[in-house]
Amino acid sequence: MHRRTITGFSNPLVKFLRSLREKKHRKRERRFLAEGLRLLTDARENGILPEILVMATGRDPHPLLEALEADVLAAGGDVVEMDVEILAKVTGKDNPQAVAGVFSEFDTSLANIDRGASSIWLVAQAMRDPGNLGTMLRTGDAVGAGGLILIDDCADPFSVEAVRASMGAIFTQKLVMAPWDEFEPWLRSGPGQLVAASLRDPTGYREAAYTAPCFLMVGNESQGLPEAYEKACDIRVTMPMLGRADSLNAAIAGAVLAYEALARIKV
Amino acid sequence: MHRRTITGFSNPLVKFLRSLREKKHRKRERRFLAEGLRLLTDARENGILPEILVMATGRDPHPLLEALEADVLAAGGDVVEMDVEILAKVTGKDNPQAVAGVFSEFDTSLANIDRGASSIWLVAQAMRDPGNLGTMLRTGDAVGAGGLILIDDCADPFSVEAVRASMGAIFTQKLVMAPWDEFEPWLRSGPGQLVAASLRDPTGYREAAYTAPCFLMVGNESQGLPEAYEKACDIRVTMPMLGRADSLNAAIAGAVLAYEALARIKV
Repeated sequence: MHRRTITGFSNPLVKFLRSLREKKHRKRERRFLAEGLRLLTDARENGILPEILVMATGRDPHPLLEALEADVLAAGGDVVEMDVEILAKVTGKDNPQAVAGVFSEFDTSLANIDRGASSIWLVAQAMRDPGNLGTMLRTGDAVGAGGLILIDDCADPFSVEAVRASMGAIFTQKLVMAPWDEFEPWLRSGPGQLVAASLRDPTGYREAAYTAPCFLMVGNESQGLPEAYEKACDIRVTMPMLGRADSLNAAIAGAVLAYEALARIKV
Repeated sequence: MHRRTITGFSNPLVKFLRSLREKKHRKRERRFLAEGLRLLTDARENGILPEILVMATGRDPHPLLEALEADVLAAGGDVVEMDVEILAKVTGKDNPQAVAGVFSEFDTSLANIDRGASSIWLVAQAMRDPGNLGTMLRTGDAVGAGGLILIDDCADPFSVEAVRASMGAIFTQKLVMAPWDEFEPWLRSGPGQLVAASLRDPTGYREAAYTAPCFLMVGNESQGLPEAYEKACDIRVTMPMLGRADSLNAAIAGAVLAYEALARIKV
């Protein structure tokens, strides 16, 4: 059991926690921050506990927080209390109910996923917006996808913003990061249909024959997918674009495809 | 023709432009800011010109910008050049190609829309995230919706963030702001089907009979819709939620419903 109270702003742990808001520190430490009792409870209910649980000394008692504390201590983790002013430096929120947890990053290699475990997998290529990325995770959870595969240079899925937008799905969806040159051979080494929205010789997205395991891929927010990636797909589908613009938000396009595939997929 | 160059940071116009990043100033001035040549060109192609066009003295020439300049001047608007350092204070971007326009806010009353003009209308209730709101506008454009009706206390659709996320759809979609107590009597004063995602006595969203004009309503990001609003709907629909979480991002839910309605609506 490791329980302690921090009273100074300059404590090394406070600096460490603050540093996790920046990508370079997250990469170096292989740790990330999740904030809020709801998110931490989602993690716990999925069997994932923070290594360090941080909260304010003056907080109100809450049964879910007490359960979390007990589990963290039982697992050998640290429970740290600090004045609300110090906690505000960590979370950016002046809220005595604020809680935060430090988690170890997950294994994000392709080897870590079992493609047969789900009918749908979401794939995002060079997705730059952490909010979109978190939303893709959340949508994946809703459609029962196995996880999200991030191709090439995406935003960091372990950023506070992406974790928050995932609404807990960061703890339920498998997460993979791989360059295309690794993903494509892996995909072709087993069963799997690769589908992307494209104007290149496409099928209507409501007529296409989706088969499991189906990998639904969306591209970068402004560039879309590279031509070679589109050509490597088994099916290219179009969605109606009736307005002046010729595109949808990438997370929206992924969700509309995912719900269509969910309804019509052949397992 | 009103063309001028500003060389000082303390110029009143610079202060005015900066003030439009804040809601209270936008409300008072009834003006908003749109940034980027693409957005301004979308506006122009839709017949909407800025009252003031702002750009850097050291910019590269661009035919679309020249066309915009000519149109603004011909319409009696102002074209203002300023040093890139001053422009950066306005746009927050240190980019000599940055351009911005000041637009007059649109009429956002219910009286301003013709419900028969489109089969689909999107409705958002107490939507607090300006990015979600802009994304709803963009999705509306893609599905050929008539516009977006904002019920109760939503984020400001004229914020820089919402305008940016709309990808130009702020200039193509009708935009209405109305409290529920005004919207509901208006809706019931003519033809119109009100549909919302709800667990209250619902129909599967892929079986529901959508009829035009169909008003698709999504609720607040964390609270969802008030019970009374759900009960006032003609159809309540459910979408599969197969994961641990019991909800989708509000803009995602709206888009999945909108694409389903688009495919199956009876006009």
